[in-house]
Amino acid sequence: MNTSLEQTLLGAIRTIPDYPRPGVMFRDITTLLGNARAFRRTIDELVHPYAGAKIDQVAGIEARGFILGGAIAHQMSAGFVPIRKKGKLPHETVRIAYSLEYGLDEMEMHKDAVAAGEKVILVDDLIATGGTAEAAVKLLRQIGADIVAACFIVDLPDLGGRKKLEALGVDVRTLIAFEGH
Amino acid sequence: MNTSLEQTLLGAIRTIPDYPRPGVMFRDITTLLGNARAFRRTIDELVHPYAGAKIDQVAGIEARGFILGGAIAHQMSAGFVPIRKKGKLPHETVRIAYSLEYGLDEMEMHKDAVAAGEKVILVDDLIATGGTAEAAVKLLRQIGADIVAACFIVDLPDLGGRKKLEALGVDVRTLIAFEGH
Repeated sequence: MNTSLEQTLLGAIRTIPDYPRPGVMFRDITTLLGNARAFRRTIDELVHPYAGAKIDQVAGIEARGFILGGAIAHQMSAGFVPIRKKGKLPHETVRIAYSLEYGLDEMEMHKDAVAAGEKVILVDDLIATGGTAEAAVKLLRQIGADIVAACFIVDLPDLGGRKKLEALGVDVRTLIAFEGH
Repeated sequence: MNTSLEQTLLGAIRTIPDYPRPGVMFRDITTLLGNARAFRRTIDELVHPYAGAKIDQVAGIEARGFILGGAIAHQMSAGFVPIRKKGKLPHETVRIAYSLEYGLDEMEMHKDAVAAGEKVILVDDLIATGGTAEAAVKLLRQIGADIVAACFIVDLPDLGGRKKLEALGVDVRTLIAFEGH
């Protein structure tokens, strides 16, 4: 890892102790997004390894993945595909259930959002247990997407999400890791 | 309006009749986002008049405004500020209530998201009655933002949102208008 990138990210990400509940160190990327230089560098570094690939679509997970995914799609001259909480998309969808800490939820994407064989980069701000990202990977593959990579700013490796995606054969790119959760 | 831009947008935006309820023609921009050329052109055209201005922050309204706002912030080398539904932001916020078709809702932004006097572009996908955008303008001004413009892909002029924002002294930019709602 480029030390100066790590320093930029450490300086720009705000840590909020005991949010949303006691014992959790919440990594708040809104301060990074609001820092024009750090935001631009983050986007450029995330996509750097894929600059030579022809990426058709960038799929962003609602809601913070929309911000990063919009920027990455623009940077790569790709399309953008929203992966949304259920009931938010107006046309025919595919849907998948996934586990949250307490109970189940469902996510959706439009059935025609990706054509079979299209090269897709999946984006979210952070990977923790990987439950959401794993569901997004399955949903994308269900409609035939070729997932080139899954990109996140923050990795919480102790929670195992990266390994879960790698076990599915997905190339995972993250820019900074924090121990614990 | 550039006719060829209008044709691009008309060809890329999907209209879904009777969604979310009978009589409404829903303008679905996900097909535009997924069309790499149309998406890129949309972003470039939206910000074109402000290319010479020094924009500090792009504020996007959750959730579709995040996608466009992320791309615009990247394009302009500005920061990005999320305006979210209540209860989603982890740090100290300012909050405002606004009217929906049925009842009230609230939106929030971080109190420190914009410094006083910073130049901000507000972004969402569509302006209809303007209730959400008007609340966002008030919220941004409450923390001292200098709103350079409010940008939307789609205008529904019959619903009066543009006039509402212009009455607040906001420069409104839209790329295509549809009659009715």
